[in-house]
Amino acid sequence: MLDSTLRDGEQGEGISFTVQDKLKITRLLDSLGIHYIEGGWPGSNPKTDEYFKLAKKEKLKHAKLVAFSSTCRAGRAAKDDSHLQNLLAAGTPAVTVFGKTWDLHVSAALKISLADNLKIIDDTIRFLKQHKKEVLFDAEHFFDAYQSNPEYALSVLLTAQDAGADRLVLCDTNGGTLPDKVQAIVSHVRAGIKTPLGIHTHNDAETAVASTLAAVAAGATQVQGTLNGYGERCGNANLCAIIPSLQLKMNYKILPPQKLAGLTALARRVAEIANLPPPSQAAYVGHSAFAHKAGVHVSAIQKNSATYEHVNPGLVGNKQRVLISELSGVSNLLYKAKTMRIDLAKDDPQTRQLVQKIKTLESAGYHFEEGEASLELLLQRTLGKHKPLFELISFHVTNEKFAEKELNVEATVKIKVRGKEIHTVADGNGPVSALGRALRKALTADYPRIKNIALSDYKVRVLDGRHGTEAKVRVIIESRDDCRTWGTVGVSTDVIEASWLALVDSIEYGLLK
Amino acid sequence: MLDSTLRDGEQGEGISFTVQDKLKITRLLDSLGIHYIEGGWPGSNPKTDEYFKLAKKEKLKHAKLVAFSSTCRAGRAAKDDSHLQNLLAAGTPAVTVFGKTWDLHVSAALKISLADNLKIIDDTIRFLKQHKKEVLFDAEHFFDAYQSNPEYALSVLLTAQDAGADRLVLCDTNGGTLPDKVQAIVSHVRAGIKTPLGIHTHNDAETAVASTLAAVAAGATQVQGTLNGYGERCGNANLCAIIPSLQLKMNYKILPPQKLAGLTALARRVAEIANLPPPSQAAYVGHSAFAHKAGVHVSAIQKNSATYEHVNPGLVGNKQRVLISELSGVSNLLYKAKTMRIDLAKDDPQTRQLVQKIKTLESAGYHFEEGEASLELLLQRTLGKHKPLFELISFHVTNEKFAEKELNVEATVKIKVRGKEIHTVADGNGPVSALGRALRKALTADYPRIKNIALSDYKVRVLDGRHGTEAKVRVIIESRDDCRTWGTVGVSTDVIEASWLALVDSIEYGLLK
Repeated sequence: MLDSTLRDGEQGEGISFTVQDKLKITRLLDSLGIHYIEGGWPGSNPKTDEYFKLAKKEKLKHAKLVAFSSTCRAGRAAKDDSHLQNLLAAGTPAVTVFGKTWDLHVSAALKISLADNLKIIDDTIRFLKQHKKEVLFDAEHFFDAYQSNPEYALSVLLTAQDAGADRLVLCDTNGGTLPDKVQAIVSHVRAGIKTPLGIHTHNDAETAVASTLAAVAAGATQVQGTLNGYGERCGNANLCAIIPSLQLKMNYKILPPQKLAGLTALARRVAEIANLPPPSQAAYVGHSAFAHKAGVHVSAIQKNSATYEHVNPGLVGNKQRVLISELSGVSNLLYKAKTMRIDLAKDDPQTRQLVQKIKTLESAGYHFEEGEASLELLLQRTLGKHKPLFELISFHVTNEKFAEKELNVEATVKIKVRGKEIHTVADGNGPVSALGRALRKALTADYPRIKNIALSDYKVRVLDGRHGTEAKVRVIIESRDDCRTWGTVGVSTDVIEASWLALVDSIEYGLLK
Repeated sequence: MLDSTLRDGEQGEGISFTVQDKLKITRLLDSLGIHYIEGGWPGSNPKTDEYFKLAKKEKLKHAKLVAFSSTCRAGRAAKDDSHLQNLLAAGTPAVTVFGKTWDLHVSAALKISLADNLKIIDDTIRFLKQHKKEVLFDAEHFFDAYQSNPEYALSVLLTAQDAGADRLVLCDTNGGTLPDKVQAIVSHVRAGIKTPLGIHTHNDAETAVASTLAAVAAGATQVQGTLNGYGERCGNANLCAIIPSLQLKMNYKILPPQKLAGLTALARRVAEIANLPPPSQAAYVGHSAFAHKAGVHVSAIQKNSATYEHVNPGLVGNKQRVLISELSGVSNLLYKAKTMRIDLAKDDPQTRQLVQKIKTLESAGYHFEEGEASLELLLQRTLGKHKPLFELISFHVTNEKFAEKELNVEATVKIKVRGKEIHTVADGNGPVSALGRALRKALTADYPRIKNIALSDYKVRVLDGRHGTEAKVRVIIESRDDCRTWGTVGVSTDVIEASWLALVDSIEYGLLK
């Protein structure tokens, strides 16, 4: 299994990872048990080089890092090619090189002879093998190539095999080959080639997953894809759909069951890193994947869940969901309150009021799933069990910009703590950072433990962008101290006020616990 | 071809059509050339009944309306069943009835004997045929049924055939059957059944499209699906992917070429009616479906677009696009500059500098893919071809909050326009809205056309949340006037400054064009 989220995935429209994002995803892929992680094309931009420098230092348990490049350029020896120098400089145990396989490409894009293209491939792979690399050879456009000129396509594979490639990856680069053709072609190739085969497909006909499964059935032993199917154009084959089908429907042992049960969480975490909405309709891992409407389906699944579920959702870490009625709202809340050690009785009118309040806030944009600490504070406030740390008198934030000068940002906070009025001011690199600093300054003397609380994530989501800058925003803050992490949420049309609400909850929760 | 967007599609999470929406979609489906439109389950809610009442009056050129229901209920004669009365009352030329086919369902959900289920099916279909309806029989869960008890599954089909059903539709209701099994089972059925077959699949393993194509290859002659794959859980088989593959890759004549060329517009129009974002990564019809980002790809498609495009995008009414990002090279920029009518020569040192500048900005957090207008302004500014509309002297934004009172937000802007100094102030429901209003106020006298520019989307992304509120943010603004839409981008640690940058670009682009 090779994951290309960091290479082919990043070629998807709207996707741009920071180096830190790439490292986070690397750790997640490794902990899932992915065998190869294709990290990028070294030398193509500074971010990729920085990534490989840092990724090498990660202690990966399962995965090998793979750097990606083209074969060496025409008219140049492999040893003198800067692409390949960069590839070696990445210092990964394995490398992928892609080579032209389709006669059209050799003549129309490279503009060299078919024989010269074979020489380039041979030279490139031999050079990399001399440097003791595990070499994966991507036969680009293999399926178009095979349909256009099968002898030449096979001669490319044989050349790569003879040069010592460890694996030949058949790529459906344009993503247009339908699964039955993929299966037939892989079978033919399998018969004439000894080197293990890989399959790499794209989703341009919405059949990438099916083509990958068909290729495995025909003898490919490595699947390549990306998380959530991210990738250029219509995306790559989606590993989040391929892995469960291989394991649960085709009986391949790919991951230990407890790892497979982490797949849903992983898919959503990566969507969050990519700052894309989690794929709600996605097979297996989508929020809606096991969501049933009231009526015929719900009554049937309560008798036997196999009646409308193709697999047990727990196997991939997903959950059955049923349309929320007020009753299920109450049981949800009781369940949550119990985990927070808050007493709530089912028949208490306060409980029903709380459910109503939560529904109102959620429909106004709150999202307590990611802001459970705010939910806990809301319950305690409503039940009169919360003692606020301070009382706000006022805050004031100014942003000043003079042409050609740096922005000047300043915030003041006036609060009452234990009867005393405290007034502080701070600057910052933005309005929310200045406000946060002023608040911390005001609380430090009375609550020195505030120093242990750090913000570990800050997210802003515009809730209805159609209203432009008048739209409501939701701020989610993740905080941590020495032993815990907690999430808080604030909503307002004003990003500063929304951040203030989430900040206050973050600090109150951290200091009160 | 049967479209079930209005029936199964509406069961998708987050989808709810008004009667007018349903009528609009009906007209669009008819004009595309769809043969059957499944409109809903009469009697299940007032909206559906109203729909059929109005839809009957539409002058449809191609499509037959189809009403949907279950077989009659156990222990009741078909003629006395209210479901079937409602079905007839809808007054459509064709009807779909679904019947249990899986022995598990008959015993676990219906709790009747296998023989009684056959009687129900027989009675229902004979009754509907007496009323001169064209009857489509949906064999629910057919593939699970066949794997559990093939004799019984076939006896259900034979019962429906003998009762006079016009078509037997094999449904993969749980969506978990992989395409090779679908193909094998359809082939077996085809051999023993004379009635024409249909195929209806769901996307729970991300293989619905492939399963549908496999069933057609095995002899099914009607495909069922929904537009954009809308539907319960992971959705239904996506007609927007199935139709082009059948026609362009499997040589079925389904639609006249000029109708097929309307598919992309239709898919986006329906997404708009459903109030969902248009499916950008969708096969064939997605905004990204023919969007090229990697430098290698762009240089090749300029020589021959077949090198990285599986079909000509024009055949489905889509377009080739080139994206600019840190992954791109000189060829992407040249392509873009050309579409912007900006002269750039490949060998000009300025061109290389621009590529470098773009890469630096992208690695600092800019994302020009979504901010193409900012890119165009950047090129013009760098090439000295840009005349700014105004000169900033200063801006000033304050956010003031007193306990128990509403937040007070105010922004002032001082700019020089055509030599005059203009100083304005505005309030707003947040700092960015106040700033935007003050800027518009300052520009209105000199540029009255600013009134035509509206913001249609506003997005904020925190780029590295680990730095908490100190993190950099990227703001993307989408704007529109009477005839166009354009995107601009700004990056800063200060959300107000980032928004300012994107706002200024939005207005400059809108007014200069």
